Amino acid sequence: MAVYTDISDEELTALVERYDIGTLQSAKGIAEGVENSNFLLHTTVSPFILTLYEKRTSENDLPFFLGLMEHLSARGLSCPVPVHARDGSVLQRVAGRPAALVTFLEGMDVKRPRAEHCQQVGMALARLHEAGADFGMTRANALSVDGWAPLAATAGDRADTVAEGLAALIARELELLAGSWPKDLPTGVIHADLFPDNVFFIGAELSGLIDFYFACTDAFAYDIAICLNAWCFEADDSFNVTKGRALLAGYNKVRALEPEEADALPLLARGAAMRFLLTRLVDWLDGPQDALVKPKDPREYLKRLRFHQHAVSAADYGYGG
Amino acid sequence: MAVYTDISDEELTALVERYDIGTLQSAKGIAEGVENSNFLLHTTVSPFILTLYEKRTSENDLPFFLGLMEHLSARGLSCPVPVHARDGSVLQRVAGRPAALVTFLEGMDVKRPRAEHCQQVGMALARLHEAGADFGMTRANALSVDGWAPLAATAGDRADTVAEGLAALIARELELLAGSWPKDLPTGVIHADLFPDNVFFIGAELSGLIDFYFACTDAFAYDIAICLNAWCFEADDSFNVTKGRALLAGYNKVRALEPEEADALPLLARGAAMRFLLTRLVDWLDGPQDALVKPKDPREYLKRLRFHQHAVSAADYGYGG
Repeated sequence: MAVYTDISDEELTALVERYDIGTLQSAKGIAEGVENSNFLLHTTVSPFILTLYEKRTSENDLPFFLGLMEHLSARGLSCPVPVHARDGSVLQRVAGRPAALVTFLEGMDVKRPRAEHCQQVGMALARLHEAGADFGMTRANALSVDGWAPLAATAGDRADTVAEGLAALIARELELLAGSWPKDLPTGVIHADLFPDNVFFIGAELSGLIDFYFACTDAFAYDIAICLNAWCFEADDSFNVTKGRALLAGYNKVRALEPEEADALPLLARGAAMRFLLTRLVDWLDGPQDALVKPKDPREYLKRLRFHQHAVSAADYGYGG
Repeated sequence: MAVYTDISDEELTALVERYDIGTLQSAKGIAEGVENSNFLLHTTVSPFILTLYEKRTSENDLPFFLGLMEHLSARGLSCPVPVHARDGSVLQRVAGRPAALVTFLEGMDVKRPRAEHCQQVGMALARLHEAGADFGMTRANALSVDGWAPLAATAGDRADTVAEGLAALIARELELLAGSWPKDLPTGVIHADLFPDNVFFIGAELSGLIDFYFACTDAFAYDIAICLNAWCFEADDSFNVTKGRALLAGYNKVRALEPEEADALPLLARGAAMRFLLTRLVDWLDGPQDALVKPKDPREYLKRLRFHQHAVSAADYGYGG
């Protein structure tokens, strides 16, 4: 949760007047997302979300993210759609920050996902991969295998203050991952952060996906591996194979996994666990020490990593079962 | 701003099912109010606010606050209205806390009020006083003259760390206020906290009042004195008599001030400044040291108090001018 930047009523009113979306009725800072400031606006026409991009989101990447949301939505994926101002622009400046107005997506994130949620997430992820196929822009994944060594170096020996022997474990693991990371898997636009707080449901039905600010061009199966990490572990850190099976079956129903993608899952899941272990570790050690953003415990992903180290095939995740 | 308590999607869905208000579509924690946790809910019917009452709001007072909002709304005042569940109840329990669902009031608070806003606030305050006339419940004002000495004692000599000589100034001032505080002014329901963040406007029109969680039974003119403090000082701490005149004229247009009320204004304004000086001082010295609630500078009210000390009549606030 975060609302970092305050906006005056005059500035908000002037902003809304740049669009053909009725007149502003209300604006509330909302506790959503940890990277940016979000406001829920009501106009006489409908609700919208205004996002002010704070430091962590690079302004150079915004055309990719906003263009992608517009593209995916045009292909039938349910996600927030950037609204064009009367002058055609999508990117604005509000309170000194880059900002964009997007449509409001109804729905709520589930705090305790069940297998039926996982199945729908798998289907939605495959739809995203298919809908992104003809998107014209690309963005390298800065948080894939090449980006992990610098993160590990930032943490350095301090990793051992979080868990005994963690620095050495990371070093060994990074060597293995760098040496065996697959390069030839089917690639395209991936979400790269499809955690439960980025998937909305109304009742039992998935209503849409949000937060495309880590989206990039990478292996589809890596996106699946992120979801296996994000959706299928229980609070006691055990892997719930019923959820894994549901997620993979849901995905496969929409877009059939290639055999080499299935084969790569244990390694990709290991890499995905490493990615979140490392970013959480760095935030834990160096993140802002305020109550607004409570850093997440990196050890959760250490435990997940250990599960993946022992997985031998996609069957361990419920694939084909 | 504050969202203290997290609620699961299941609990929210179950809550909404207790009402005849359609089905839940979304729920966002909003950055509004510093005392309680607020969520903006969309149902298939309309938006609502769910408030979870945190420690500072006494559960015993909730029937007064909620009953008052319902009463004022029935008398035509624009304010959030508590919604009755199917079983007739207004007060619920959510995430272990007392909670109430109220209608959503469109509008935005103004960051830089102008005289025309002050005039409308004066009118709305008078309407509130008139609409509350036949409300059946009473609630003593715990933050009036008798409540100030305990607050001053809590701060004690530590007040001098905030401003030189403050402890002695407070002691002298409290003695004067206790000795001369008027007892026989017209009394009824007052809002007691009608700051700019509790008054909503759509465009230039006042759309309603919110946050009745300090409302109590006290002198109407004291409520006016609070508003003079809250609305009519500039960022440089000077009193803007044009705004004062607009506020008082607006009030007087709806409910004519009695001569003794006008005469008491300088003293009441002095007391109102003391009330906010003291609560801010205690929060400043003893408040929770987290980034969620940044304590407000008590010195702002020390400067306002000094202005009131030199006021001799209501004319100094623009009354009758």
